[in-house]
Amino acid sequence: MKKILIIGAGRSSANLIKYLLDHSLTENWIVRVGDRDIDFVKAKLDNHPRGEAFALDAMNEVQRKSEIQAADLVISMLPASMHVAIARDCIEFVKPVITPSYVAPEMWELDEVAKSKGVLILNEMGVDPGIDHMSAMKIIHHLKESGAELHSFESFTGGLIAPESDNNPWNYKITWNPRNVVLAGYGGTAQFQEEGELKFIPYHRLFERITSIGIDGYGDFDGYANRDSLKYKDIYGLSDIPTIYRGTLRRGGFCQAWNALVQIGLTDDSFQIEHPEKLTWKSLTSSFLDMKGAISLETRFRESFDISDESFSKLSWLGIFTDRPLGIREGSPAVALQNLIEEKWKLDAEDKDMIVMWHRFVYQLNGERHELLSSLITPGDDPVYTAMSKTVGLPIAIAARMVLNGKMKLTGIQLPVIPEIYNPVLHELTSFGIVFSESVRPL
Amino acid sequence: MKKILIIGAGRSSANLIKYLLDHSLTENWIVRVGDRDIDFVKAKLDNHPRGEAFALDAMNEVQRKSEIQAADLVISMLPASMHVAIARDCIEFVKPVITPSYVAPEMWELDEVAKSKGVLILNEMGVDPGIDHMSAMKIIHHLKESGAELHSFESFTGGLIAPESDNNPWNYKITWNPRNVVLAGYGGTAQFQEEGELKFIPYHRLFERITSIGIDGYGDFDGYANRDSLKYKDIYGLSDIPTIYRGTLRRGGFCQAWNALVQIGLTDDSFQIEHPEKLTWKSLTSSFLDMKGAISLETRFRESFDISDESFSKLSWLGIFTDRPLGIREGSPAVALQNLIEEKWKLDAEDKDMIVMWHRFVYQLNGERHELLSSLITPGDDPVYTAMSKTVGLPIAIAARMVLNGKMKLTGIQLPVIPEIYNPVLHELTSFGIVFSESVRPL
Repeated sequence: MKKILIIGAGRSSANLIKYLLDHSLTENWIVRVGDRDIDFVKAKLDNHPRGEAFALDAMNEVQRKSEIQAADLVISMLPASMHVAIARDCIEFVKPVITPSYVAPEMWELDEVAKSKGVLILNEMGVDPGIDHMSAMKIIHHLKESGAELHSFESFTGGLIAPESDNNPWNYKITWNPRNVVLAGYGGTAQFQEEGELKFIPYHRLFERITSIGIDGYGDFDGYANRDSLKYKDIYGLSDIPTIYRGTLRRGGFCQAWNALVQIGLTDDSFQIEHPEKLTWKSLTSSFLDMKGAISLETRFRESFDISDESFSKLSWLGIFTDRPLGIREGSPAVALQNLIEEKWKLDAEDKDMIVMWHRFVYQLNGERHELLSSLITPGDDPVYTAMSKTVGLPIAIAARMVLNGKMKLTGIQLPVIPEIYNPVLHELTSFGIVFSESVRPL
Repeated sequence: MKKILIIGAGRSSANLIKYLLDHSLTENWIVRVGDRDIDFVKAKLDNHPRGEAFALDAMNEVQRKSEIQAADLVISMLPASMHVAIARDCIEFVKPVITPSYVAPEMWELDEVAKSKGVLILNEMGVDPGIDHMSAMKIIHHLKESGAELHSFESFTGGLIAPESDNNPWNYKITWNPRNVVLAGYGGTAQFQEEGELKFIPYHRLFERITSIGIDGYGDFDGYANRDSLKYKDIYGLSDIPTIYRGTLRRGGFCQAWNALVQIGLTDDSFQIEHPEKLTWKSLTSSFLDMKGAISLETRFRESFDISDESFSKLSWLGIFTDRPLGIREGSPAVALQNLIEEKWKLDAEDKDMIVMWHRFVYQLNGERHELLSSLITPGDDPVYTAMSKTVGLPIAIAARMVLNGKMKLTGIQLPVIPEIYNPVLHELTSFGIVFSESVRPL
């Protein structure tokens, strides 16, 4: 009997746990799930005979190490900052580990020792990063084998609300970590490459520089740049490609209104508000504006920022001009804003989410230039088995099964950009309805 | 014979060292100065019989502790981040220490143990923070003793170029740490209070929200908000004051042009430029702009940012649209910009700098409202004995003499906001020509 250890069971882990439990009897697995909130885990395990819930304090090194030592495979669903500590423990006890997160520089430093000890550390194995890498690399490798020369690669992913549940003016609800929603892009500068030129977008202009994307049957989306696309030139084997751009999708119009929140300063996470329990949203918003005598807050706001009526009505709907208390005892403006959107953008019991992914490749083949579009729309089943949970959890679960069955004999830091990972994973994902649509046209 | 240990001898330490050496024979002192660059120290000591230069690696704990143990008083002129480690050593060996820097939260934590061991840790003892606190507190205490009720306190300081050396379009040259010039305000949010309302200005709007200040005989200045003014409500004993605002001065027109650099992203310090040795200024600036076909960089720039002809000509003069190489092998845009301004804003051999300080108080006395203006203009003597070096170094030096002569019997974390510090220091500063002009008028 093999033991799978899942560390951290956030809202993206429902399908991961379900897949592993569904296979646990035939594969002879125990699925042991640790989280700070043991009741949350118990609900997900639903008394399954092969499921074990335990209360985990991931910062407790003794407990963490003893759990890892007793496992055959580790899946870390903790916040990204914790993965390096987990990976170090996994190297010490020679256990393979899978994470859905970006590889931090300190994680790369473990590559050599992981290889020398024969330990697999498989990262970026969720949806974005994850399925985006796999689906793109399958096309990139195919195009290269056909003799095509790649000129441009753009890739956008969004965790959105399904059309039937899309009933607020932002066309957005929270389907994953709300703090990451508020701080998307914060504190960094997006980097990509366009026609051979490096491109940088500082945070304060991130939501102004939008790529408009339409997907047949699903309408219009805003794409904004996602962190550092440049590092994927090497990872994707595209060191000479003129254009490479990875981004995030929101519904059309979202970014202009969100940009207003950024411009005001309401996404600021750099300082603690003095006595936030005494403040209303009106007073917080006012604190970011110039004093201008007796005119109303809304008027001062519209004089300070050049935004459309549509964006202004989104902001009004959110409540940033109201007497609603901030409702926090301490924290930054970003913490207050998170508190607000967690209520306003809450998934209702019947709501379904949706993952949208869109790739565009431009390539030269036999003297002609072509455009290849590839897109994925995955709806969620319900508020537990969401599209986010499916697309983050299933690739990890499938990879876990491969590792335990000896079908993935890799070591060191790995990403799913190689055929021996992406082919079987993408193939099995189709049985869950995760299928890309492709079209090619000459340019 | 008492030994004064100066750790770090940057460009602001010339007058500090001179004062201490000038008094060393009568006071019977040894002035021991350690810096990474021993030749730089030797030049400043100029073979004075009581001066000792030594090569110091401030990160070398063994050397640092042995030097501190052998001293009677320590002056830390290191970067602010180092002061806490120095203060810990000084507590261990029961030595008083003086710094010109803001008190970090970790420094405040040392207050109790410093008091219990009878050690003085005197901070914010330069010009800003330093002389600003002292001159303001003298007025504040005087007004309170007269029965006045303070309604508003604004205080602005700038390290600028003297009028006779002011010969570039920015009306600015580098008279202190150039990295701090580039990163002024970066990564934080300015906080102050206006008419009882908290006010926050995020970095991307810091240089847009200007207070215009005129000083008779010296022309117009731009004032922009300096970090966290709110914490001085308690430190100054002004917990109920409606308006408190500390800021930084530049010459009129500077901030609008500098704001353009912020908006572009050229002050960004959050990422390393890929192969900066291959880039020109033109290409770096272009990397921050949208692609727009074949139009010139200057045109694309002016279409992207709404700036005046005057600001645009300042940017052109700086060279950000030219084929000049970035001239760095690694670093962020801020590092590249620092490299550029260190050349373009260099102090020439004959140049003089100037410190400008301006306070405005509004208070109610005997039923009438008054405005009190207090300002200080201090020119430098030459490029070594600058106004910055005088105003940073002399308050520290005067305080050091008081401590060594037993005239300052304080312990724990201290700031120069109490009469027993500010009265004697301000008094002695007048003998160096550091004198405030005051005027009062009814409002």
